[in-house]
Amino acid sequence: MSASVGIIMGSKSDLPVMQDAADVLKAFGINYEITVVSAHRTPERMFNYAKEAQGRGLKVIIAGAGGAAHLPGMVASITTLPVIGVPVKSSNSIDGWDSILSILQMPNGIPVATVALNAAKNAGLLAAQILATADESLTVKMQAYKDELRRKVEESADSF
Amino acid sequence: MSASVGIIMGSKSDLPVMQDAADVLKAFGINYEITVVSAHRTPERMFNYAKEAQGRGLKVIIAGAGGAAHLPGMVASITTLPVIGVPVKSSNSIDGWDSILSILQMPNGIPVATVALNAAKNAGLLAAQILATADESLTVKMQAYKDELRRKVEESADSF
Amino acid sequence: MSASVGIIMGSKSDLPVMQDAADVLKAFGINYEITVVSAHRTPERMFNYAKEAQGRGLKVIIAGAGGAAHLPGMVASITTLPVIGVPVKSSNSIDGWDSILSILQMPNGIPVATVALNAAKNAGLLAAQILATADESLTVKMQAYKDELRRKVEESADSF
Amino acid sequence: MSASVGIIMGSKSDLPVMQDAADVLKAFGINYEITVVSAHRTPERMFNYAKEAQGRGLKVIIAGAGGAAHLPGMVASITTLPVIGVPVKSSNSIDGWDSILSILQMPNGIPVATVALNAAKNAGLLAAQILATADESLTVKMQAYKDELRRKVEESADSF
Amino acid sequence: MSASVGIIMGSKSDLPVMQDAADVLKAFGINYEITVVSAHRTPERMFNYAKEAQGRGLKVIIAGAGGAAHLPGMVASITTLPVIGVPVKSSNSIDGWDSILSILQMPNGIPVATVALNAAKNAGLLAAQILATADESLTVKMQAYKDELRRKVEESADSF
Amino acid sequence: MSASVGIIMGSKSDLPVMQDAADVLKAFGINYEITVVSAHRTPERMFNYAKEAQGRGLKVIIAGAGGAAHLPGMVASITTLPVIGVPVKSSNSIDGWDSILSILQMPNGIPVATVALNAAKNAGLLAAQILATADESLTVKMQAYKDELRRKVEESADSF
Amino acid sequence: MSASVGIIMGSKSDLPVMQDAADVLKAFGINYEITVVSAHRTPERMFNYAKEAQGRGLKVIIAGAGGAAHLPGMVASITTLPVIGVPVKSSNSIDGWDSILSILQMPNGIPVATVALNAAKNAGLLAAQILATADESLTVKMQAYKDELRRKVEESADSF
Amino acid sequence: MSASVGIIMGSKSDLPVMQDAADVLKAFGINYEITVVSAHRTPERMFNYAKEAQGRGLKVIIAGAGGAAHLPGMVASITTLPVIGVPVKSSNSIDGWDSILSILQMPNGIPVATVALNAAKNAGLLAAQILATADESLTVKMQAYKDELRRKVEESADSF
Repeated sequence: MSASVGIIMGSKSDLPVMQDAADVLKAFGINYEITVVSAHRTPERMFNYAKEAQGRGLKVIIAGAGGAAHLPGMVASITTLPVIGVPVKSSNSIDGWDSILSILQMPNGIPVATVALNAAKNAGLLAAQILATADESLTVKMQAYKDELRRKVEESADSF
Repeated sequence: MSASVGIIMGSKSDLPVMQDAADVLKAFGINYEITVVSAHRTPERMFNYAKEAQGRGLKVIIAGAGGAAHLPGMVASITTLPVIGVPVKSSNSIDGWDSILSILQMPNGIPVATVALNAAKNAGLLAAQILATADESLTVKMQAYKDELRRKVEESADSF
Repeated sequence: MSASVGIIMGSKSDLPVMQDAADVLKAFGINYEITVVSAHRTPERMFNYAKEAQGRGLKVIIAGAGGAAHLPGMVASITTLPVIGVPVKSSNSIDGWDSILSILQMPNGIPVATVALNAAKNAGLLAAQILATADESLTVKMQAYKDELRRKVEESADSF
Repeated sequence: MSASVGIIMGSKSDLPVMQDAADVLKAFGINYEITVVSAHRTPERMFNYAKEAQGRGLKVIIAGAGGAAHLPGMVASITTLPVIGVPVKSSNSIDGWDSILSILQMPNGIPVATVALNAAKNAGLLAAQILATADESLTVKMQAYKDELRRKVEESADSF
Repeated sequence: MSASVGIIMGSKSDLPVMQDAADVLKAFGINYEITVVSAHRTPERMFNYAKEAQGRGLKVIIAGAGGAAHLPGMVASITTLPVIGVPVKSSNSIDGWDSILSILQMPNGIPVATVALNAAKNAGLLAAQILATADESLTVKMQAYKDELRRKVEESADSF
Repeated sequence: MSASVGIIMGSKSDLPVMQDAADVLKAFGINYEITVVSAHRTPERMFNYAKEAQGRGLKVIIAGAGGAAHLPGMVASITTLPVIGVPVKSSNSIDGWDSILSILQMPNGIPVATVALNAAKNAGLLAAQILATADESLTVKMQAYKDELRRKVEESADSF
Repeated sequence: MSASVGIIMGSKSDLPVMQDAADVLKAFGINYEITVVSAHRTPERMFNYAKEAQGRGLKVIIAGAGGAAHLPGMVASITTLPVIGVPVKSSNSIDGWDSILSILQMPNGIPVATVALNAAKNAGLLAAQILATADESLTVKMQAYKDELRRKVEESADSF
Repeated sequence: MSASVGIIMGSKSDLPVMQDAADVLKAFGINYEITVVSAHRTPERMFNYAKEAQGRGLKVIIAGAGGAAHLPGMVASITTLPVIGVPVKSSNSIDGWDSILSILQMPNGIPVATVALNAAKNAGLLAAQILATADESLTVKMQAYKDELRRKVEESADSF
């Protein structure tokens, strides 16, 4: 079955962060693909990826990048799919501020759904929520996920 | 027909910013509702709004707030729907940094799809993209919207 | 005897910071309770905690959280008790700025008494000062505490 | 009847901001005094004010200042009363960051209950909450105040 | 004669800032072209512009943009020409920080020669300096320009 | 012989930083005294220190502190001597920004000569320069110091 | 009589700020000279100014500049006189942060006595304090100045 | 053969960062020289270096420095050659912000081509691009370099 979510990152060094998105999608039973696409080092690859994403059946794209992070915004400029941006605190980043602002501050007309610094898990959850708008079984899983979050806090509270 | 998108804001003073979201949705022919829900001044109203949103048929919630902006994150903690957060540069904001960080930096487990400061238009577009994942006619409109953006730049380029 | 101060934190991982508040209260002979209450993962628990706090005899609430820290502000929105907020520099925080601004920049109408980053000890002292406004014995202890601070500096000065 | 709350500010130019604290206290029927005390231009006056505050019957001090705002922290170092700090965005401030950090980041041992930038109204409310810990009639008024906040939002929501 | 320098900007609203680059080049007798190329609204136009720039005889590209400013970096990723980036403090910018960091913090491998916020004049001068490395007449003009700067300061000093 | 320069710090934990000031003064043959004076924990000691400084023969005061660093500014408010402030990046500091702004942003009327973060060495040199305005032998030593700085760079250049 | 204090600024547009330094010196009866010296546009003039300053009888230099403000630090690198730096919030400055950091963060070996943003008045007072270390009459005037500051606050307090 | 590019740094401690620029130039077969030139500790050496650079055959200068980084801007004020500035995150830097702003925010008239924090490799590449504007063989190498960047990303993508 073809993938519903495409996870891309600017560099393989972003994988330890971005893997969280894949893990969440797997847990929700959502098909995904994951690869490296660099806006700056492989601009044509990025162009083609964004151009063909919808035709290949993708519904949502998760894009992570650090420093002057142009990947999420550039992909969003080419596709009509919703793009979730993950600011990565890479080694060449200034405390993450550059990644955050490069991804978040998109001009009117081209949104990127930005999540917290390094929050690839939340990117995966957001992708699941988006797909859940047309798939009730995902809503059920999402509610179960939230219930589990709650249960863990309660358990942790009991340990006091 | 019931609304697919709920637009809420922490204070009526956020309306000049948040109206842009409504205008975009209207242009895309998407039913929406718009109202004031304050996390801090009407916490129960906020709770109920978030709790009942899905049952009332909403698919996406757009929440805008300024300063210590808790509305988007709190709504996201209660509903399983995707929540789009709009940081508003309100009069009591420190250049918008407080609004941005309060909305963006959600902990793992509870994503908020954050857009740029005051970018309610992009929040509306993102909501349309989310609905478009299950509605091809919206994808067609979104492509037309992007074509129009392109056409305007080209026109503007011709004027040089 | 019932607790006068409730110490809550968004996650058990905040305990190493928040324990300082408990230690201060213990040293002042003030009854306290301490537990985990997450605004985002257990919103109803948070609601109930805040709603029932005063009825259970609490006089002051100390709430610590990191990142997009909504716990102090949300509790303050529900209770009429004074709420002291402790910004925690958690692992997902951007140098603490997100925690500080999310707690400090509350809108007019809903104050949170914010202390320095990770300064749970000061939160405990502030709670003691608040209780001391109606309990002279606490004022005496507070003066003794300040005298001890002074004495230690003088001792340290003597060592030069 | 003697004042329960002392409102001080570093400069008379802070009055337009600090007046909000006085107005809130008046609305709650709390006696207050208000004056100018500059940590930098009148250090002895500041010392005496802080030293004598408790003896004169004050229960809470609200101190507002801008720039390198030392007034709240210095007063807190001298008195055992709870001190509420109001960072004022004065003309010589760098977007308020200097005022905020000078007031908020007090060392362990000497808390200042910091409120949002220019949020003197919240300082007044916090003072009322502190006094309410030993005065049930103030709790009733505080609940009424919160009810009124809620009612205004609901009214504003009805206008959509 | 074909242009040596291409000046592009993300939006016609950047023209009041970017015109300074054109004016400097004109004063130095350097042929330039100027147009609007938006990375986000006209990604293909941007791609083609960057791809064809060298073939059309351009030696240097000056690219100005605001907010999440991807234009300079994306053009630099496609062409081998030196790209000068001008961070523009546009209306949707957070005090210019987003523009600066999006342009400056390029990853290793893809440099952008960044100048100060809104400093399109310096971008023009830098382009002239680059061309001067192979055109002695431009060096002579640059020295004359610097002499004039000096002369004006001296004149201004005389007025004291 | 009595000390010409008084070095004070808010906490003994600042000594590793502040020792540099003492070392410089020693190298220039300037008498100094060094001790702990905390604005917040020993406000009266601080008052007395500042009040008596000139009478005891001090010509310059060097004051270092971290976090909400009030020591330099408060001492400057009491004495007429020049006060040099050293922002210390203490453990409870937010990357040093709080220390810097608390010391630097003094209101008109009460200057503090602020040096770089942790730059106690420069504080010592500045004190020497101040004393040198009335002591030619110190000017000679200062010139020698600068010559040595230059010589070391030249030596380091030779090693390439 | 020759000037004791040299006031220089990077551009005549800094004069409205820097005039305050001159006014203070005049009020204290200190001879000063004032002129424009640009590190960037007149580097040789700057070099000569710094080189000859001491020989001409200057005791202190006050240097103001905005943006990437190199004037104070460069002058300090050439002269052995104490240099007071005034960060100017010029039109091309990013909220003053660039001016502040360029002047304050000097490396070990080359101090600049930095005052608050735009605080040329404090630069003048600091120069007077420096000269007062060897001129008791200036100390008397400085004490009178401080007394006047105090008196004005007390007067202002009386108006409440 | 004489060097085309001069690499200078404010301190030998910057060498681990600045070496990257040299390595790139070597890989492109471009002659370079590398040495230490401190604006603050060897101002005359800096003056002479900048003054003589063009006469000695240099075409481009790469200057790296940390903290209040005046070297790139001061060199640019003296020479007509293009100057590339590398902000170095030295030990005395505030997260690199001081280096970045001191180098980037040059006033109109005196550009510095600023690259990312610690990005000496990009400085080397930018120098190569500048020289390539008059040397087609360098353009060929630059294209090959970019092809290799692309190839490595593709290879990395294959490994998924």
